[in-house]
Order: sequence, then structure tokens, then C-alpha cells
Amino acid sequence: MIAGWGPQHRDGLRPVPGGVTAARGFDAVGVTSGVKASGRPDLAVVAGRDRCAVAAVTTTNLVKASSCRWTDNVAAGGLARAIVVNSGNANVCTPDGEAHTRRMAEATASLLGAAPEEVVVMSTGVIGVPLPIELIETALPTAVAALAPDGGEAAATAIMTTDTRTKQAAFEVTDAAGRRCVVGGMAKGVGMIEPTMATLLVAITTDAAVPVDALQQVLVSAVNATFNRISVDGDRSTSDTAVMLANGNGGEIDLDMLERGVHAVCAELAHMVVADGEGATRVAGVRVTSAASAADAERISRAVATSLLVRAALHGADPNWGRILMAMGNAGVDFDLANIEVTCAGVTVCRAGVAVPFDAEVASAAMSAEEVEIVIDLGAGDESVTTLTCDLTPEYVSFNADYTT
Amino acid sequence: MIAGWGPQHRDGLRPVPGGVTAARGFDAVGVTSGVKASGRPDLAVVAGRDRCAVAAVTTTNLVKASSCRWTDNVAAGGLARAIVVNSGNANVCTPDGEAHTRRMAEATASLLGAAPEEVVVMSTGVIGVPLPIELIETALPTAVAALAPDGGEAAATAIMTTDTRTKQAAFEVTDAAGRRCVVGGMAKGVGMIEPTMATLLVAITTDAAVPVDALQQVLVSAVNATFNRISVDGDRSTSDTAVMLANGNGGEIDLDMLERGVHAVCAELAHMVVADGEGATRVAGVRVTSAASAADAERISRAVATSLLVRAALHGADPNWGRILMAMGNAGVDFDLANIEVTCAGVTVCRAGVAVPFDAEVASAAMSAEEVEIVIDLGAGDESVTTLTCDLTPEYVSFNADYTT
Repeated sequence: MIAGWGPQHRDGLRPVPGGVTAARGFDAVGVTSGVKASGRPDLAVVAGRDRCAVAAVTTTNLVKASSCRWTDNVAAGGLARAIVVNSGNANVCTPDGEAHTRRMAEATASLLGAAPEEVVVMSTGVIGVPLPIELIETALPTAVAALAPDGGEAAATAIMTTDTRTKQAAFEVTDAAGRRCVVGGMAKGVGMIEPTMATLLVAITTDAAVPVDALQQVLVSAVNATFNRISVDGDRSTSDTAVMLANGNGGEIDLDMLERGVHAVCAELAHMVVADGEGATRVAGVRVTSAASAADAERISRAVATSLLVRAALHGADPNWGRILMAMGNAGVDFDLANIEVTCAGVTVCRAGVAVPFDAEVASAAMSAEEVEIVIDLGAGDESVTTLTCDLTPEYVSFNADYTT
Repeated sequence: MIAGWGPQHRDGLRPVPGGVTAARGFDAVGVTSGVKASGRPDLAVVAGRDRCAVAAVTTTNLVKASSCRWTDNVAAGGLARAIVVNSGNANVCTPDGEAHTRRMAEATASLLGAAPEEVVVMSTGVIGVPLPIELIETALPTAVAALAPDGGEAAATAIMTTDTRTKQAAFEVTDAAGRRCVVGGMAKGVGMIEPTMATLLVAITTDAAVPVDALQQVLVSAVNATFNRISVDGDRSTSDTAVMLANGNGGEIDLDMLERGVHAVCAELAHMVVADGEGATRVAGVRVTSAASAADAERISRAVATSLLVRAALHGADPNWGRILMAMGNAGVDFDLANIEVTCAGVTVCRAGVAVPFDAEVASAAMSAEEVEIVIDLGAGDESVTTLTCDLTPEYVSFNADYTT
């Protein structure tokens, strides 16, 4: 168990089923349009029964999918009715990408009686192959007709690419005044996962009533503390998107509590993404404590969590603190080696920057757990940050050598 | 064949044998001191018969080996008589690291009748384990007694860690006035290889007469254009060192020609390092052309060459230009997608930022070569840079999961 990540007890939060349709007033559906040659589900719609406040965070990659640019515009407008997602094709670097994104929004909007600018679009899958938009347009009427309040699971299935399982989470949030709301969500993504988003699609819904500006702040804050603190392979994709819809059906709630709920949903989804990382057999939390600043903690934590050599050692259940110090030294942050203490899975292996004798068998056994915490104490202040990563395995490499264009 | 790298014809340069002892007036030796439990050679000395001008470049990792700090001081003094290298132990993050480095220099210096401050020290191997300095002190008298003008091969063997073969290169340099010198060198390093140096030890010798300041400039320039443009795993080590000694025995030579010679030696050694990269089966040159600035070309070339997904695709002989564009977009450099052309092993796969139809079988066959060029044309200017990398293989991961502390 890694502190702050994955399913665990949180005050004022109660886990509930339903994922992206856990909150009242949202319907979802997942169908097969034929974009995926495999015949697996590849088209999802999440819709509010009324217009919702919308917030979005999209990739910082310069090569940005047209769907991300479209979604940025929807979020700038502040109102959305639905999210349409296709998997199997990223609609990136194709001649008609922009036109196809617009057609996806238009087709969905006309079926819902909404404006195209009120439909968020996400596409994920292979890059550079024209999107067979007609397949999507043909499938959408059936999909929209089947929208249902228990459609969260089907939608979460239809957005998967190389994911081996669906990723859903939801919490009922209760504030000090006894007011309640539900926050639920779904995600996909197991590769190209790297801080500042990833081939990651995240859709979150809530029945709380939230002003658009506050919603955007809540989403950015939660994404920064969760999806931006995970790494599978250091590659950021061209299509990363996190979107949140709030329909107000449940009334107002304390904003700090809402933020805790959104953070909890994102933390649980982000943990699922790392645990399902391509080829991964083990999840590690790289926790940097006693840092002079949160920025220092973040940079060092990230440098260690993304080091190939550290991640290969993690696969070998090897408390290889030499590689950890090597990675720390490359973080571009000043620290005093004489203050450093490193603990791997509860075994202190380095103190004051030099080796501490430890029982290698005990340490290796502890490191063999499904979840491992690496704690790096900088002895410099009060800030701490945890980055989540997974082990680098021969299977990851085989998988990505064979997954072809 | 990748342009500018590896063995190839160069005007005014003629390959010669002998590595680090190719230049007149240098002796070398490699022996077994016992630092390596395997009993393989682990101690090398390279010595000039007189004092030499010395230049050095050492790691930028904040956790910097005491040997690197010592060597920086030697280089600051401008004069050196010898280089002593042990493999099997990096002498990093150990309580007596600094004292042990000094003792290595002192023992070598007293045998040669030099000052300790005239002896460059390099250590490579495991981090955090105390260096058995007595073994080195015991072996040094025999080693120094065996220094020989044909000892380059033995020295190159003794500095190896996980290298599978020695890395040596040498050229005779002739300038326009017919003056000649020899530049030779050796290197070790196959992992933790990343721009801004690596677990890389490089020793270069020349019989040219060069002022110390010029020597430092020549070395920095050659290292920047070669060892700082290779990447095996994105991890910079704590011990990287490149050192050059010039004894003046061969007299003066045109400095530009000397620089070409040093560049050629470094390019050939750097190519050997990548080709011997842990688990590697294929070398790729990522060439960015028509960039607006060399800095742009360098950043994009590096981002693509270090992308795990690009390197996994390289292992699969897959011209996966979607991943190449994804990696380019993460480089932090502005470019116009509409101008981009990507050619993999001679097959153009992307033009104006969108797919070009190509025969997948032909492309895959071309990508299956031992050496592959990926050319990215930015259509923005006249600058170009090539970064060398190797494919990411399941064997790399297995190797680094099992190589233990």
C-alpha cells in the first residue's frame, strides 16, 4: 500500500460503484463501431441530461491531436453536454483530422439536441492512419439511443486500447454541513504514461453544483497531484485529455471537500494506470521527504521514478540505492549528500550518503511485494512528494517492439 | 553506416593501431589487482615518459565521484604524468572515498617519480561499496614496472566493466604543412550512457605539442560533438570522465587538424560504446536536418533518440513515425508540423506531417540493418545534428534487473 494512492480510507469519502455514471444525471454507453479491427468496443459516449459546467486539461505535446484542440475550445466555452470517445485510432497527423473531430462532435450533438461546441471529443489509438469517421457516424445513433444510467462499465470498456482492465472509481463526498455529492470517473492508458499527462484519457463527472472557474481549478489541482505524478515510460502522448463535467443536480458542496473527492478519484484511477502499465509486475511509490520545497521534492522524485536503471532494479527486487543516488544527482536539484537517507520497502540501505549494512535477502524479499515504497529523506525541510511508477520489464520492451504502426 | 560516426574515411586522417599507446612517448599496462571478484583485469595505468599537458571533462551529476573531483584538480593544474584507472568499484558514496582516491594517485606518483597532483584517477564499477585500496596499492608496483609502448590493448581490457569488447581508436593526423601527430584513445561504458557524459571513461593521448588551454578547448569540443550525442539509457553516471594527455613529442600541428583527429577518435569510440550498449542489437543515428538552430536540432534529435517507445520500435524494426513525432513534440522546441519529413532507413514515411504510403515489408527489412539512419527534416533552416542510440531490448532490462548491488 502506497500512502495517498490507490483504494484506501479517506475521511468524508465513501467509495461507491458506477464509475462515470455514479453521479446522478449522467448516462453512458459503449459500443463497437468497427474502428478497431479486433471487433472490440471502440466508441463511448458520456452524457449529462442537461448542460454541464466543463473543465479540461490536455496534452502539452507540441504535436497535439485535433481532438485536444477541440476540447480546449469546448472547455473555454464553459458548457458541455457530452463526451464522445473513440479508441483504436488517435486521429493525429492525418490530413482530415480536424474535419473528422468536428464531424464526431456534430454527429453526437445532433442526436442529443445540443450544439457541436458542447461536445468534448477524445480519440486514442494509432497515429497517422486516417480515422474511418463514417463508421463512427453510423454507430452513433445506436449508441446514443442506448445511453443508460448504468453504462459506466460499458463506456470504460470501449475507451481501452492496450489496457488489460477497465479503470473506474467513484466516491460519495460529504462536507461538514452534511451536504453530499458524488464524484466518479473512468480512465484509460497504460503506455506513453509520463508526468504532464500521458496517452491518458480521463473523464470525471459530478452532480455537485460548481462554477466553471472553480471546476477548472479543482481539476487542474487534482491532475497535478495525481496524473502528473505517475510515469510508465517517460513519453507524453499527443492526445492526453482529462475532462470533468458537473451537472449541479446534487446542489452545492464545500469546494475543498469536492476537491478531495476529485483528488481521490484521480489518485485511484492513476494508481490503476500504473498498475496496468505495459508489462508491469510491481508498483513503486518514490517518496521524497524533508525537501526544502515541493518543487525540489517533485523533481527528485520524478528523476528517480523515471530512471530506466532504477526501474530495472525494481523489477529485480534489488534495493540498488547507488542507482537511486545517481538518478537524484541528475535531477538538477541541489542537495547535501551527507543528509541523505534512503529506505527501500522499509529497509534503510543508505544513511548520510553512504552504505548501511543490511540483510540482502530480507531487503530483496521486501522489494518483491506488489507495491513498494522507496523513501528518500533529504533532511532539508518539510515538503514531500510521491511519484508513482512501475518496474521496467522485458515484456514492456517486447510489447512495444511488436505493437506496430 | 551512419554519417560522421564509426570508422570511415576522413581527409588528412589515417587509422593506425595501438589505441592509447599509438602516439609516441606513451606507455600503458593492464593487470589484475583483485578488486573484481571475477579475477579479470581491473587496474590500468597510462603514462607519458615526461610531463604532459592535460585536459579533462567530468560528470555533471551532482553526486560526483571523488575521482572526478580529483581529476578536475589535476586538469586545473595543467600538467599530468599518468592516468590510473580501476574497474569493479566506483569508489562513490563510501566513507573513505576521497582518501582512497588520493592514495591511488600517491601510489602511482611515487612509482613514477611524479607528484600525486600529476596523476589522473578514474574508478568505475559498483557504487557504495568501500574500495579495497590495499589491493590496488599492492598491484601498482608490478603494473608500473610492466608499462609498455604496446600496452594499449591491456589497458583497454582492464578498464572494462560490463563491456563485451575493448574500445580503442587511433589516427595519424597530417596538416596542410605536412606536419604529423598521432591521436589515440580508449573508452569503456555500455550502460548509464546519456548525453552530458555517461558511465563512460575515456582516455586520449597525443604526441602533438598543444598549449593547455587549447587542449581543453579541443577536448570539450570533441566530447560535445560525440560522447554528449550518444544515449543508451538516459542515465548519467557519477563517475564519467574524459581525459586527454599531450606530451609534445611530435611537435606542433595545426590546431584545427588536431581537433579533427580528436573528434575522429571520440566519434569512433562513442560509436563503439553505443554498439556495445547493454542488450543492443542495432545502432541508430537520429539525424535532424534543416533546423533553424543547432540547439533546436540537438534537442529534437536527443528527445527522439532517448524515447523508450522509439527505441522499442527500433528493436522491432518498425518505422513507427507516430512515436517519432510524439517524441519530437516533447522536445520543448517549436516546429511546424506541416514542414516535417521523416525518413527511416531510406524510406520516407511522413511528409508535411502526415503519412506517406510506403511498403511496410520493404521498410521493415531496411530497418532490420545493424545500422539505421532516421532523418527528420524540419524544413526550417540549415543546421543539423545526429544523436546516436541503440535499440531497447528485453535483454537490456533482464541484464539490469539482475546486475545487483
